[in-house]
Amino acid sequence: MNGDLQKSTDYDRLIKVFGVTPLSEEVLNKLPERHKLFEIGYFFAHRDFDKVLEGWERGEEFAILTGRGPSNVMHLGHMLLFDFVAWMQKTFKVPAYIPLSDDEKYVFLKVDSLREAAFYAYDNALDIAALGFDEKKTYFFISTKTPEIYEMSVELSTEVTLNEVKAVFGFTDSDNPGKYFYSVVQSAHILFPTVRKGYRSLVPIAIDQDPYIRLSRDIAERKKLPKPAALHSKYLPGLTGEPMSASKPETAIFLDDPPKVIKEKIWKALTGGQPTVKEQREKGGDPERCVVFKWLEAFVLDPKEAEEWKGRCRRGEVLCGECKKKLYEGIVRILKEHHERKLKLADKADKFFLHPVDWGEVDKVKEKTKRLLEQFNLS
Amino acid sequence: MNGDLQKSTDYDRLIKVFGVTPLSEEVLNKLPERHKLFEIGYFFAHRDFDKVLEGWERGEEFAILTGRGPSNVMHLGHMLLFDFVAWMQKTFKVPAYIPLSDDEKYVFLKVDSLREAAFYAYDNALDIAALGFDEKKTYFFISTKTPEIYEMSVELSTEVTLNEVKAVFGFTDSDNPGKYFYSVVQSAHILFPTVRKGYRSLVPIAIDQDPYIRLSRDIAERKKLPKPAALHSKYLPGLTGEPMSASKPETAIFLDDPPKVIKEKIWKALTGGQPTVKEQREKGGDPERCVVFKWLEAFVLDPKEAEEWKGRCRRGEVLCGECKKKLYEGIVRILKEHHERKLKLADKADKFFLHPVDWGEVDKVKEKTKRLLEQFNLS
Repeated sequence: MNGDLQKSTDYDRLIKVFGVTPLSEEVLNKLPERHKLFEIGYFFAHRDFDKVLEGWERGEEFAILTGRGPSNVMHLGHMLLFDFVAWMQKTFKVPAYIPLSDDEKYVFLKVDSLREAAFYAYDNALDIAALGFDEKKTYFFISTKTPEIYEMSVELSTEVTLNEVKAVFGFTDSDNPGKYFYSVVQSAHILFPTVRKGYRSLVPIAIDQDPYIRLSRDIAERKKLPKPAALHSKYLPGLTGEPMSASKPETAIFLDDPPKVIKEKIWKALTGGQPTVKEQREKGGDPERCVVFKWLEAFVLDPKEAEEWKGRCRRGEVLCGECKKKLYEGIVRILKEHHERKLKLADKADKFFLHPVDWGEVDKVKEKTKRLLEQFNLS
Repeated sequence: MNGDLQKSTDYDRLIKVFGVTPLSEEVLNKLPERHKLFEIGYFFAHRDFDKVLEGWERGEEFAILTGRGPSNVMHLGHMLLFDFVAWMQKTFKVPAYIPLSDDEKYVFLKVDSLREAAFYAYDNALDIAALGFDEKKTYFFISTKTPEIYEMSVELSTEVTLNEVKAVFGFTDSDNPGKYFYSVVQSAHILFPTVRKGYRSLVPIAIDQDPYIRLSRDIAERKKLPKPAALHSKYLPGLTGEPMSASKPETAIFLDDPPKVIKEKIWKALTGGQPTVKEQREKGGDPERCVVFKWLEAFVLDPKEAEEWKGRCRRGEVLCGECKKKLYEGIVRILKEHHERKLKLADKADKFFLHPVDWGEVDKVKEKTKRLLEQFNLS
């Protein structure tokens, strides 16, 4: 495993803290092909991913599953993860399940109403679907609109105690009972394909979400079900060097940012360049410390191109402005195509959902996407 | 307020412990007529029942609401309560809501599966409906089969903390998160007619269930909704003198007991009679201590008849065997008619439910009722 992202944070410590297994060459060699995010070390740890791959070689189908908390428009960091999930679906020809946890966002006070969460759920789902998911094998579901989820949550809730939930999530007696119950609801999301269809779930997930996986695995064991497997990712650094966050819009590019905003954000991004053009030409830049380079690597360049580009930066052959321009043009091209696909998909949203679709909300998403696309067409 | 039931237990203490209001003559005088259960003091306390009656006089409709936990066949004690609810519906011409809490029974480990609870939910609902509920104004709903309930529970859950739930129900950290969350689900049941239709809920409920009412009232206040009102009942003593309980079948008459079993149970019931016929004739019996008399008063006799019967017992004019025979004949007559009505209702079960009916479960209830009715027709 190599790659730039790995070096930038203390992921070795997280592997120890969470007790997950580093992703070894031996496991990666079982893959029929390697996605770029394996090459650059974005996925770096796992639980039972080796067992999933061994089972798959023996003809055992699995389900790929990643949830989304619909409290806002998604950003490019989310896109990276779901792009990978779509690749997994294509590569292994497996069903994909995408729970949209409106309940989570409400009990953690991230939305003012379930209605607000529903709008983002449809918006997010169409963004995800537009990444190339197979409508015949992809199942989005909004948690409160899917009666099976509450039923399953009730059935799973007797397998854990408050003590366990507290230990895993660090809640206190000042927290609301909705947060506690959501720990079980999340397990119901993860185990849904297992209980209903007999598939083992594989969950690509950011490393800090591992507690949910651990709880789901404990519950699965007690219910004598195959335990969900996980693939753990790092975080792509935000444009400013901080983590990407909806509360700091300058850190991320959101899927509803128009080209003008994208340009402004990229122009202000943290680079590994020298203070002056002269110094950059003489000493070269440092791509390891450069967010713009990491974003180029993640979104625009293939691994070979990225290596070349890195060398050119180090030798001072390229200036930060060129990199920013390349990133801006790449992202605008990607997003324009993305919004076009999203708009086309909106009319058949029902093909992707387990429950009846609220077309009123989908219409709002369509309108928004149309207006946004006009700005991309002008740019 | 007078009556025999009141004297038999420490209900005055409960009024103080729970902080409820005794049901005064002043409040009872607001009723357009008095149900027998008011006359005999079975309902003895309340929260805001006076306000409900005053509102009704001003033309404000309310909803009558009583839940049922479907983990078993109902017994005559339950029938007494729902019979009163049906009377309230008729007298005030108000909608009746009957939540069936399959989730509660599962998280408190009273059923092995939600499927088992579903069977009892349909069985119990048809028993309740057969007491004379108006199909146009009665809404049964099974908690996990009614998506609005989980949605509402999520929305209410942020109004309370674990601390509050612990204080009200005495749960500990060894309890499962389902029990905690159910405290909010129960509030969703109680506030359902208020949130969806704007009715204030009036909940006739056994006094020990008051904590649920208190929590629902607190939540209603925080959500700026009219607080649910409550009418508190005593417990009818079981045939053996102990409380009626499904785990001690001899204490109660269940709605699936055949006449033979009913006879056996009544013949073994606790009476206030003397040890010998001679002594009974000389000294008379004590109806105040006699469960058979209390059951006659509750199920078979009208208040005037009950007073006469009491006198005859005290003067030794009647022997325990006569009372038992009168009770047996009365109950068998009531139940035979009841089962006939239940069987007729089964085919239009869907008229009474908010969610689509599981006709497979209803068919099982029908089969069971048919076989039972054969035994009543033979007796």
